[in-house]
Amino acid sequence: MLGADGSMKQEIEKLWEEARELSLGTTATAVERLPSPPTPLEFLRRFVSANKPCLISAATLHWPATTLWSSDVHLRRALSSATVSLHLTPTGRADALAPHPSAAQCFASAHVEPMPFPLALDAIYSSDLDSKFVAYAQQQNDCFRSEYAAIGGDCEPHIEWASEALGCLPEAVNLWIGNQLSETSFHKDHYENLYAVVAGEKHFLLLPPTDVHRMYIRNYPAAHYYYSKDTGEFKLELENPVRYVPWCSVNPYPSRENREKEMSKFPLYFDGPKPFEVTVKAGEILYLPSMWFHHVRQSPDSRGRTIAINYWYDMQFDIKYAYFNFLQSISHPSSHDMELHETGCLGTSICSSGDEPDINVVADKNGVSDEE
Amino acid sequence: MLGADGSMKQEIEKLWEEARELSLGTTATAVERLPSPPTPLEFLRRFVSANKPCLISAATLHWPATTLWSSDVHLRRALSSATVSLHLTPTGRADALAPHPSAAQCFASAHVEPMPFPLALDAIYSSDLDSKFVAYAQQQNDCFRSEYAAIGGDCEPHIEWASEALGCLPEAVNLWIGNQLSETSFHKDHYENLYAVVAGEKHFLLLPPTDVHRMYIRNYPAAHYYYSKDTGEFKLELENPVRYVPWCSVNPYPSRENREKEMSKFPLYFDGPKPFEVTVKAGEILYLPSMWFHHVRQSPDSRGRTIAINYWYDMQFDIKYAYFNFLQSISHPSSHDMELHETGCLGTSICSSGDEPDINVVADKNGVSDEE
Repeated sequence: MLGADGSMKQEIEKLWEEARELSLGTTATAVERLPSPPTPLEFLRRFVSANKPCLISAATLHWPATTLWSSDVHLRRALSSATVSLHLTPTGRADALAPHPSAAQCFASAHVEPMPFPLALDAIYSSDLDSKFVAYAQQQNDCFRSEYAAIGGDCEPHIEWASEALGCLPEAVNLWIGNQLSETSFHKDHYENLYAVVAGEKHFLLLPPTDVHRMYIRNYPAAHYYYSKDTGEFKLELENPVRYVPWCSVNPYPSRENREKEMSKFPLYFDGPKPFEVTVKAGEILYLPSMWFHHVRQSPDSRGRTIAINYWYDMQFDIKYAYFNFLQSISHPSSHDMELHETGCLGTSICSSGDEPDINVVADKNGVSDEE
Repeated sequence: MLGADGSMKQEIEKLWEEARELSLGTTATAVERLPSPPTPLEFLRRFVSANKPCLISAATLHWPATTLWSSDVHLRRALSSATVSLHLTPTGRADALAPHPSAAQCFASAHVEPMPFPLALDAIYSSDLDSKFVAYAQQQNDCFRSEYAAIGGDCEPHIEWASEALGCLPEAVNLWIGNQLSETSFHKDHYENLYAVVAGEKHFLLLPPTDVHRMYIRNYPAAHYYYSKDTGEFKLELENPVRYVPWCSVNPYPSRENREKEMSKFPLYFDGPKPFEVTVKAGEILYLPSMWFHHVRQSPDSRGRTIAINYWYDMQFDIKYAYFNFLQSISHPSSHDMELHETGCLGTSICSSGDEPDINVVADKNGVSDEE
């Protein structure tokens, strides 16, 4: 009879393997590549229904953006009077865990500075390891159809085969312009995501929802960076009253000096099956299924820019979601070690706290409500 | 922290509720009805991907069978020289648990008698509570395309919108002719099932795969009825060497004298959420999703016949299947009470035994390999 810690550990780890064996593939960590966009039926049957990612080549070659955005001339002109949201951080890591002066980890959001697009683009170009900040033009509030409306005609308003398959239009379309210093920490979204790269490359690490215990999701206190133009310095301030955000604890690329410590804190991640690795190049679209954990880094084009646009479609909250919640409610015996080791950590297990916050309030989109 | 019996019980029962709340509906035990066949995309998106049943009206009105089978004239003539497999049991309950003289329960399969179709039909008509046997013309080995090939043109060879959605043709098409005495015990199939009624009515009880613990699946020794024309009596013989078949222990319609005992043996079934109830009438098709548990009874038409045809399509063994296997590997604390009470039972828990038998060997189709 199962239920004892040892058996539960075995069953959860068997699930990681089985999800891979059944449809994802065990021999490679690459996702399936399609040479051209699928039909709506094929997309729905083979990927959405199966909750399986795919990378689609030659997906956006017909977009005017493919040529219009190859230099900045058109973008600067079309967006000359547009005000956009520029995210500023000291390191390029926003919506990520950061050490707080209280000596514990917190969930840190960027300083958001509204500014004219041409100045925002200049700030991105000037972002480097020696600069005072790293700038990332992004706002996950449907920004492509609001702040960037003037260039809306350069890309398709929706991905036709995906809209037909999913039976709806995108709930949000977001634009991302940054450079190699910006990265996005592991998280999941409650959306079906079509992620198109227009310039440069995006490098994804992907884990299926069945691997939830390997992410060590814990509640972290929300904090915000505040940047002072006068001093050129950032302050990181906790929200008051305190608000907890459930977030993945794993940094898959720890610094050399932290590597050993991180690997011993998160053995389920570092010792388990390798994540799927996908590089999305200009002209390609990644289908990133709902509830998959993803970590994103990027490489710029020859001009120093990575530009991407993503389409969020409503997901179906069906039996797969019910199964996921059930799985998440179960403790993996070794996923609690972290708290034992980590006396200085403010993080609390969401399993211990009993409830995942309402997805529409705190965990919506990137898991953070104040970004909308 | 979960993992203790009490918490696991709570989490499993929350899963039963959540699967219903998310997409199946909690206010009624009826499945969604569509007034006419869905488009392939709608069928795939709203039902197959979500693993959700639906009942489709006006689905087979264009079939020649609708009129040709309304009397027996055409059937007797077209099948005058066809040999079909007639299943004989003492009670109408084949592929069901039955008490064995050893005083324990076994999994009893029918006596299968090949005979000319007109005689088989006569035997079905003569099946009643006073007759020596109950006859059911059925063979789940693609019989409609083999034994009944002569009337193949009376129905569609496949359900067009389903084949397009699922991307394949049916793996098997089966015909079922019986009367009100034949019933099918709770089980699940590893197929997407399109179930069309041509004459009479079929009454289904349905439970989603998330309710697996409520079925008390246990291993029972396989046995077969043997009917002797000479004595007019059945013998029930265990297979030798013994072979175990995992089967649902719950009879949802216990006799009055057994009711209290059955309800106390299977509280997770009798005290939990009510099963979905669907009556499928002539001209309608039930989409019975893969892995759903179903129990079937039937009512005859005015001539005394229930005729149905079902199309089995290959299911996708994807993340839903991995989640199901994980769920099934976990013990529900109270689902083991049965074995404690039931000292005379040969059944063993498939959780205790560790492994579900290979689906391609023992549990294929109706969970029984020797029927193919």
